[in-house]
Amino acid sequence: MSTISRRGLMLVLSSPSGAGKSTLSRLLTDTDANITMSVSATTRAKRPNEVDGRDYFFVSPARFTEILVEGAFLEHATVFGNQYGTPRKPVEDALASGRDVLFDIDWQGTQQLEQTAKDDLVRVFILPPSRDELERRLRTRAEDSAEVVAARMAKANDEISHWAEYDYIIKNDDVARAHLELQSILSAERLKRRRQTGLVDFVNTLTRS
Amino acid sequence: MSTISRRGLMLVLSSPSGAGKSTLSRLLTDTDANITMSVSATTRAKRPNEVDGRDYFFVSPARFTEILVEGAFLEHATVFGNQYGTPRKPVEDALASGRDVLFDIDWQGTQQLEQTAKDDLVRVFILPPSRDELERRLRTRAEDSAEVVAARMAKANDEISHWAEYDYIIKNDDVARAHLELQSILSAERLKRRRQTGLVDFVNTLTRS
Repeated sequence: MSTISRRGLMLVLSSPSGAGKSTLSRLLTDTDANITMSVSATTRAKRPNEVDGRDYFFVSPARFTEILVEGAFLEHATVFGNQYGTPRKPVEDALASGRDVLFDIDWQGTQQLEQTAKDDLVRVFILPPSRDELERRLRTRAEDSAEVVAARMAKANDEISHWAEYDYIIKNDDVARAHLELQSILSAERLKRRRQTGLVDFVNTLTRS
Repeated sequence: MSTISRRGLMLVLSSPSGAGKSTLSRLLTDTDANITMSVSATTRAKRPNEVDGRDYFFVSPARFTEILVEGAFLEHATVFGNQYGTPRKPVEDALASGRDVLFDIDWQGTQQLEQTAKDDLVRVFILPPSRDELERRLRTRAEDSAEVVAARMAKANDEISHWAEYDYIIKNDDVARAHLELQSILSAERLKRRRQTGLVDFVNTLTRS
């Protein structure tokens, strides 16, 4: 009962803030041994609770530019003056050895991955169950002003407006169900013919005469 | 917690005889209330244990030709002088109301469905675990001659040779696991953005200002 070798896939999760993406990412990597979260490089300062190489690869702006110029980022972005990028090599090594990589990125990062890695990409968008629930989750503190909440809602609306650029849509009514749905997407995508690179050889063993 | 309406899908299962397709079809329709097996029309005589409208729609050759000329079959074939066809209307009604339809057909039927219903089609090919196991399953009786088994193997090889025309490939080492894999494909395909026809309206409720 040999296993058919396959190429890994890149699972992209995007959602507005407050739709449960971080929880789902953690659940997925905790329960599935064959998928790991992609670790980004960043120029921002390390926070006390962060570990270099686990949370991020912390690099200087000069080093970041070097990597960028080498074409060694799969995607990159500047957020609040800090640079973030996905190093290409660890992802390519994982895919070549049949391991899957999870990306928690926004629609802009997803569009960049689409350019460099289309065939390996599985794009999933998580929607909140309702506008009221989204607003409740964005109103993190009782003293948040109407303006602060409105600004967060505007940002959420901007992210949501890109839902149609994704392959799969999960409405996160219930995190356990959403997790199962995400697992079914991962299981199914692993069974896609074009990812199962060992099939040609396996079929030859069935039909040799 | 409203459900987003969706269009049904057409799940095609193909495999060589002896790969476990019938068992998997039954398991899937027994455990999933939203998918039913497509019922074909045929000109062959009803067998004692068969029920008209459940196993087949039994029709005269003249009636079959009428339906065919009207373009009311999604696919059709002649096997040992008997005609078989998939009536279009029940399938279209099911899809429009969000119900899924399972097809147990060969590569020729699958190619015809590809012409008429490409976007609704999810094509799954079931492979046996090994050549020895396939041969064991095709040698149904101890007294089968080498020629009979060889002829069945040749037919199986012909069917297997079309594996690359399918979207997903399941190697049936273990029927319980293959069933889970088939369910994950069905669950994932139901979450495809383009099948979730109610998404535009739902997203509007999230982002209205």
